Amino acid sequence: MKLALVCFMFAVVAGVALGQNVPSSLAEKLGYAQDAKLLIVHADDLGMTHAVNAASIHALESGLVNSASMMVPCPWFPEIADYAKNHPDADLGLHLTLTSERVYLRWGPVASKEKVPSLLDSAGYFFHDWNAETHINPKEAELEIRAQIERAYAMGVRPTHLDTQQYRLIMSGKDLFEVVLRVAHDYRLPVFVTRDWFAEHPYLEPSLGPRDIVVDHTVTIEPTVPAEKWVDFYTQALRNLQPGVTEFVIHLAFDGEEMRAATRERDTWGAAWRQRDLDFFTSTNFRRLLQEQNIKLISWREVARAAKLE
Amino acid sequence: MKLALVCFMFAVVAGVALGQNVPSSLAEKLGYAQDAKLLIVHADDLGMTHAVNAASIHALESGLVNSASMMVPCPWFPEIADYAKNHPDADLGLHLTLTSERVYLRWGPVASKEKVPSLLDSAGYFFHDWNAETHINPKEAELEIRAQIERAYAMGVRPTHLDTQQYRLIMSGKDLFEVVLRVAHDYRLPVFVTRDWFAEHPYLEPSLGPRDIVVDHTVTIEPTVPAEKWVDFYTQALRNLQPGVTEFVIHLAFDGEEMRAATRERDTWGAAWRQRDLDFFTSTNFRRLLQEQNIKLISWREVARAAKLE
Repeated sequence: MKLALVCFMFAVVAGVALGQNVPSSLAEKLGYAQDAKLLIVHADDLGMTHAVNAASIHALESGLVNSASMMVPCPWFPEIADYAKNHPDADLGLHLTLTSERVYLRWGPVASKEKVPSLLDSAGYFFHDWNAETHINPKEAELEIRAQIERAYAMGVRPTHLDTQQYRLIMSGKDLFEVVLRVAHDYRLPVFVTRDWFAEHPYLEPSLGPRDIVVDHTVTIEPTVPAEKWVDFYTQALRNLQPGVTEFVIHLAFDGEEMRAATRERDTWGAAWRQRDLDFFTSTNFRRLLQEQNIKLISWREVARAAKLE
Repeated sequence: MKLALVCFMFAVVAGVALGQNVPSSLAEKLGYAQDAKLLIVHADDLGMTHAVNAASIHALESGLVNSASMMVPCPWFPEIADYAKNHPDADLGLHLTLTSERVYLRWGPVASKEKVPSLLDSAGYFFHDWNAETHINPKEAELEIRAQIERAYAMGVRPTHLDTQQYRLIMSGKDLFEVVLRVAHDYRLPVFVTRDWFAEHPYLEPSLGPRDIVVDHTVTIEPTVPAEKWVDFYTQALRNLQPGVTEFVIHLAFDGEEMRAATRERDTWGAAWRQRDLDFFTSTNFRRLLQEQNIKLISWREVARAAKLE
């Protein structure tokens, strides 16, 4: 017992020492000046529909959207997994998914259903969303996200990073956040966490270890922005970009029959929204703003290298 | 033991007696003359994509396609289940599905994966197809098709009949056929079986009981028919329609981006194929041929009633 106590105290002291050993900024780790303005333009939700895949591939190949993440449980994951396998330099991560938020197009777990009952509704799909009555078992969440990563690897995908759909695994408490960190460490993958979230979710910062990546800022457009102000919103966001690393979280799709049907119950992240994002982030206007503001695009691939995860 | 033996012999004798008591033709059971030409125009694969759902709903509402079946494991099943729930008079059955035949859009089981390993590939999807090396465990097939039916009921669907995707559960041996029959009997649902298949699959006829429905004939277009001969094929099929009940098995979708992407690896049952089927079966030409040939449309709802299953 005494030896155990001494070991514990040593670990605490060592942890504190590491914590005090303030690392250089992420920008510096990436080889830039501390006040450089670095941007990851990150498309979410790949795999959800063909329209999302097609638009995201189009945007990635334009060079202005340089990062994205894929939803393994979704029906069109095989299409984007095939693309990922054939484009090993593309910066494609996994968008860990434990909800199925739409009404007419739905999906369920990759793990065996019997093993993840707390994640499922009565028809066996993931819940549309989580609320105070939803009791997610963190062990089941861990089993499911490991199953998603394993399916991706089994299909030849080598993800560059992890993030989580609707931030559910980040913003739903310490237990689930620690699950994501543990799994990320096991697979040596960086997780998208930004210090913008630290104030509202005080468990985030103390859970992070010295080698975990923290992105300085994030920007995502909100439903309060009217369609005609879309370009203004992003223009202002780029003009006001802070030094350090920022991730723009965007949602792309072609606004066609499939996407309109898939999102028809709610405009937020709907077909027209995604077409507006696609239009802006593949525009010459966006390219000009990047140059004008001296913003450098970086990807999770470089972040992982800086964090010595690759 | 002696009592059991007597009971068994009585059951055998009673069964033989029932078998010998030749029922009237299906046409007569439906209240038509034995030589009436009765047709079910049946759209397969609902739930697979939005384009299939939208086209099938359009065709059902045209009145000329009067029956269809839904794939419960597929991503767009919630959309068509919602339609079925809100259109309780529509003749919508379940297209029991144990394969996932496409490349870029895939699906897996409704049952817990651990319970149906013989149905799954290494990534946890249903196999693309079955071949001599695929050893399907009939108990697992039964568990999965029961799970599909239970999900449909849980979502408010009241299916009118059962059929099976790519005829896999009908044409893959006696064990699987008996699974489908047993499940159909439990749910008091008719199963699509036609005597056109009896010669090639000799186990079918002896497996059927006296109350099972047998459709006299079926017609489905084959990949050998060139696109420009589509109308000719169906015109000839209608002009040559035999007396009794025939089911036309057709495949509908709008030929758009989603369907083209979903079927791009193979033209058979592809987007253009499905648009051609949609065009023919909603045409005034088809309506005229039905009148000209004195063909009556019937549905599985009437068949179930005739079989005293409803």
